[in-house]
Amino acid sequence: MSIIYDRVALIGLGLIAGSMAWAMKRNGVAGTISGFAQSQASRDVTRDLGFCDIVCDSALDAVKDADLIVLAVPVGAIGAVMKDIAKGLKPGATVIDVGSVKRDVFNAVMPHLPSDVHFVGTHPMAGTEHSGPKSGFAELFDNRWCLIVPDKADPQVVARVEEYWHALGSMTDQMDIDHHDRVCAVVSHIPHLIAYTMVGVADDLRKVTDSEVIKYSAAGFRDFTRIAASDPTMWRDVFMTNKDATLEILGRFTEELFALQRAIRKGDGDHLFDYFTRTRAVRRGIIEAGQDTDAPNFGRSKT
Amino acid sequence: MSIIYDRVALIGLGLIAGSMAWAMKRNGVAGTISGFAQSQASRDVTRDLGFCDIVCDSALDAVKDADLIVLAVPVGAIGAVMKDIAKGLKPGATVIDVGSVKRDVFNAVMPHLPSDVHFVGTHPMAGTEHSGPKSGFAELFDNRWCLIVPDKADPQVVARVEEYWHALGSMTDQMDIDHHDRVCAVVSHIPHLIAYTMVGVADDLRKVTDSEVIKYSAAGFRDFTRIAASDPTMWRDVFMTNKDATLEILGRFTEELFALQRAIRKGDGDHLFDYFTRTRAVRRGIIEAGQDTDAPNFGRSKT
Repeated sequence: MSIIYDRVALIGLGLIAGSMAWAMKRNGVAGTISGFAQSQASRDVTRDLGFCDIVCDSALDAVKDADLIVLAVPVGAIGAVMKDIAKGLKPGATVIDVGSVKRDVFNAVMPHLPSDVHFVGTHPMAGTEHSGPKSGFAELFDNRWCLIVPDKADPQVVARVEEYWHALGSMTDQMDIDHHDRVCAVVSHIPHLIAYTMVGVADDLRKVTDSEVIKYSAAGFRDFTRIAASDPTMWRDVFMTNKDATLEILGRFTEELFALQRAIRKGDGDHLFDYFTRTRAVRRGIIEAGQDTDAPNFGRSKT
Repeated sequence: MSIIYDRVALIGLGLIAGSMAWAMKRNGVAGTISGFAQSQASRDVTRDLGFCDIVCDSALDAVKDADLIVLAVPVGAIGAVMKDIAKGLKPGATVIDVGSVKRDVFNAVMPHLPSDVHFVGTHPMAGTEHSGPKSGFAELFDNRWCLIVPDKADPQVVARVEEYWHALGSMTDQMDIDHHDRVCAVVSHIPHLIAYTMVGVADDLRKVTDSEVIKYSAAGFRDFTRIAASDPTMWRDVFMTNKDATLEILGRFTEELFALQRAIRKGDGDHLFDYFTRTRAVRRGIIEAGQDTDAPNFGRSKT
């Protein structure tokens, strides 16, 4: 593959930035990769791992001469970072973020963006429950969606950003800012909140039931613990910054849950059966869309 | 391995019975396997698949001369089945169930159990989202837990039942009736109810967001759809028969969820961060207990 940006600066060196760097190296997408992280430890680890060509001790140094700047920090830190780097950005450069929300990111970035620098929102829908520079791997984005939120950006700049994500292995789709935040509340934010809640409940009960909750986790609970092990800082920021959409979906969720709770209390088996039948169709849609495997035991190796 | 029961009768021919039969054949655990299902279609499919040596057209025929009778029907049907087969049971035979709840099963079975027949509750903690005779496979129980609920059964009879489950590949643990129902409400029943609810909410919203919910499901939602595709009849019966424990755990869940919802509304980031940090430890416990893989991308093959 050919170079898409001559110089790429990664601000923040966690799972996403590390995976982007490895994927850029794998496919020869960037000429030079510079990087910066707030934490000295992360910078040191990144120097050892070698996925950046240059690790800088300030964000301003890292963005110097960069054609693409990736804001790969928690959403809550994006405004401060943007303010920090604004005066060092090369005219004509493109800045992207990789955050899970977009309205708040645009609000944080735009006031600091120089008039001769472009900004495009991007959101790679890929992750693991691990975090930090050691957690990155080149295949993270392969065949996964990356949502592109251009808002008012120059179409040619946006096209180049999409080309870049394709070169990292992703498929892309464009979306409006607020629609993005609403879709992500449904497919990602509320499922995470619910998983965190369930694991929290079980953790409370663990004091009663000893280690049984862990021992027998394969019965359904295990899937929740995987989701609920994700990075606490990232997820705190998601809920702090996508408040309206998450509260709206959460309202619908508790409404439905109370209807099912009432059916259990009243012994209304028909209501439960009809509800449980309807949800099977959603699963079939996901299998047909190629978003998951239909293999027995959930496609996992036996443990 | 040597034969543990000379003749085993499977009443109900779904995922669990089919998998038990394949595992019995793999390890030579039974002399002869007979089977019965309420549905003619399931009996026909089972005859074609060949995992039973004899497929009978009545439950009473199937249990004739059987040393072990497995009640592998939805929990809500166990009382009627037990009443049906009681007069055909061989003196000294052992009956087991494989249901997800136990108090209700004991209440349903015991009034019909002949005094010279034994009953032991068993609950293999294994499953997939598939159902029916075609969904069974020999490896389903390998290295998974099977909970044994002896109540007042003869210890020698119980030991034989445990030996049988070991021969199918499972590990076993003994538990009291009510403790079983409470532990399972936490690790399995409520996680399923929550997953069903979340998928139901998304299905409602799908009418608004077209197929986006399915397209971007890998962001967390996908794990819920897998759980929520499980057999509707089985899960209806679980909630109809484990009412007290599920309502209790559900009460705790909504209490915690409301506390998090309030933190989102108030913008209390510390509360969210502390909660999300605590749940990570539970995940670590599960990895350390060998109940799941720590591999990137959740140990799934890339799709």
